[in-house]
This record gives sequence, C-alpha cells and structure tokens, in this order.
Amino acid sequence: MFMNNKYKIFEQYMLKFIQDSAHDREHIYRVVNLCLEIAKYETNVDYDILICSAFLHDIGRKFQFKNPSLCHAKVGSEMAYKFLIENNYSKELAEKVKHCIFTHRFRSENPPETIEAKILFDADKIDVTGMVGIARTLMYKGKVNDPLYVRNIDNKISCGDLEGEVSFFQEYKKKLENIYDKFYTKRGLEIAKTRQKSSILFYEKLLEELSEFS
Amino acid sequence: MFMNNKYKIFEQYMLKFIQDSAHDREHIYRVVNLCLEIAKYETNVDYDILICSAFLHDIGRKFQFKNPSLCHAKVGSEMAYKFLIENNYSKELAEKVKHCIFTHRFRSENPPETIEAKILFDADKIDVTGMVGIARTLMYKGKVNDPLYVRNIDNKISCGDLEGEVSFFQEYKKKLENIYDKFYTKRGLEIAKTRQKSSILFYEKLLEELSEFS
Repeated sequence: MFMNNKYKIFEQYMLKFIQDSAHDREHIYRVVNLCLEIAKYETNVDYDILICSAFLHDIGRKFQFKNPSLCHAKVGSEMAYKFLIENNYSKELAEKVKHCIFTHRFRSENPPETIEAKILFDADKIDVTGMVGIARTLMYKGKVNDPLYVRNIDNKISCGDLEGEVSFFQEYKKKLENIYDKFYTKRGLEIAKTRQKSSILFYEKLLEELSEFS
Repeated sequence: MFMNNKYKIFEQYMLKFIQDSAHDREHIYRVVNLCLEIAKYETNVDYDILICSAFLHDIGRKFQFKNPSLCHAKVGSEMAYKFLIENNYSKELAEKVKHCIFTHRFRSENPPETIEAKILFDADKIDVTGMVGIARTLMYKGKVNDPLYVRNIDNKISCGDLEGEVSFFQEYKKKLENIYDKFYTKRGLEIAKTRQKSSILFYEKLLEELSEFS
C-alpha cells in the first residue's frame, strides 16, 4: 500500500503476524495514514520512528491470542526492537519505536511520552471510534465467541454495566463510550469527535431493537 | 426463557447445538418472540408447529460450520423430524415442522408455503434487519475471519459489489440491503421497515469513515 520503499521492510514484517479481521492489514494501513494526518499538525515529529511504529504496533497480537495472559504491546515492542537491531537500524531508533509500541495500548498504565508515541496512540484509538470502532469490536467479539449481550437478574437485557459481564455491550461501555476523552493530540481528538455521535446512535438503536421483542 | 413447559423439550434440544455469537440462544429466543408477535396478526396459526420450528430452526448450523457444503436448513429439518418422531410427536406435526425449517433460509429456492413457515421465515429475517442485523453479520464475519472490505483494482475501498468479493460490505450488498422486499407477512414487513433506515445509515457512515483516511 505504501508510497516510500524505505518503509517496505516494516510492512513486509508486519504482514507475517496479521491475525483477526479487527486487526488486519487494513487496520494497520488506516493507522499509518491517521498517523500521517495527525503529524501534519504537530512539530518535531520523526517520521521514521512514527511510520515504523505504526506498521509494527500490532505484531504482538498473535501471541496474545495464543496466550491471553501476554500483553501484545509489551511482546510487540520487544519483537520490534529485536527486528530493528537485527536489520542494522540504530539502537536509538529501536528504543524509540519500542516505547511507541509499548505505550499504544488503551488498557495500560504506561502512557505515551514522546510525540511519536502520542500520535500512534491517538491514531490507533481513532480506529475504535465511530462506526469503524463498532464494526471492529463486533468482529472481534464474534471471533472470540462472546455474546452481543447478557441478561441481568430480572431477565432484562443488560446495557453493558453488570459486574463481570463479558459482551459487546460491556466492551462498548468500558471502552468505546469513553474513548473520546483519552486523546493526546488536538487533531486526533478532532477526528474522533466527528465520529462520536454515530457510535452512540448505533448503541442506543441496537439496544432499543433488541429490547423490543426479547 | 420460555413460559410454557410444553415447549421446554424443544428449548433443551436446541441448546445442544448452539454455536456462534450470531446464532446463539438469544437469536433463537428473539425469533420465537417475533413469531408470536407476527402470529397475532395472522389467522389459523398452529402454535405448536410454529414454536417448535422457531426453537429448532438453526440446529443444523453446527454441521454447516464443520462442512460448508451442507445446508443447515436441510440438515436441521431432517434432525428435527427425527427428534420429533423419536419423542412420540405425530408424523403430521413432524412433517410440518420439517417444512418450516427446510424453507426458512434466505439463500434458498424452496419458499415457505404454510402460514407457520412464512411466519418463521419473516421472524428470522427481521433479525437480519436494522442494527441487530448489522451486529450479527459483523460478528459472523469476524468468526469466519472475513474482512470488513476489500479494495478494487484502483486501490479504492469496494462498496461490496466486486465480483467474487468476500467481505462484510459484500454481505451487506447481497443480503442486508435487499432483505426488505423478502417478507411474506404484513406485520413482519412492518417491523422490518422500521429498522431499514438505521441499517442504511450504518453502512453509509462506515464506508465514509473508512474512506476518509484509507
């Protein structure tokens, strides 16, 4: 997909680790493009670090799938570091890419510190907003066989806030609904905000339809 | 879930064959409830045939999953017939249930002929309309690892109409978009129509978001 041959090596390496429909090559390409879009509005961005990190940010997913106790951001950051050193990139670049990948995860206590890490975090989070975020979350839930909803004690459909609930609605409540106050960059937040309304509409409409004859 | 103990045996049998998130027990319960809703507006409905068929309509899915050349409607209709005969239901009931299940499939050249078969067909199709249909289709696509979209020859995102395309957009174009002229009952069509607009909105919004930075 990409314009600059210098980045082809990252794309090729990434393609080895592509897994589910929610984190496929098209997700990676969208994140790369979103990084470039956000970077236009920032200063002092190192594009080599940014683009390399964007291409490689999900290479650890395959291993998290096999063993859910692993964190794909941690595994992926270490894989990327090793890959870059083995391919004669500088230790400095490898370290910076490692930081971007390690801190890109939503469920993480390790916030992004550099501008490239902040941009990657935001670009990846934009792909969880709006209808794209809804679609990818539903595909992921289908992949791991989680239900759309569960019922609460009086047999009503839970809107996603039951303790210990595992469902699409719970993922919406825990992640998708609150993603909009998690952005680091102005442009990232701006893009996300344009998609917020449609995501809410989907959730409300789905809950309404399901409740009608359930 | 169900109110009448006489139907418990169908629910129990159905639960043995539950498979993916798009065709889980909640889909079955929704279809049972939708059958009852549609039946209110029809005459001469045999509720035993209708409710039995609704509970058992997807029991063949498991076998279609294992072997995609099988048709779950055909397999399920034969399983249901055998199950009913073995449990001392009349041959007449078993035959009528078999017809309902055999003809409930959207991709089929065998249209429903009895009122119970028409009601089951419509109830099952309502669960493909609106945001529920979008959500279930996405979960199914995630389960079988199909992509959200593919690209056409000039690298643009295909809206779902490429020859041989396999994607969520293709399934939307082939099935979800055209489901609204496939109904047999007035009440079925009425419920479906209330959900048509939101399904179109989702598709258009998703395509717009994806095209923005792809």
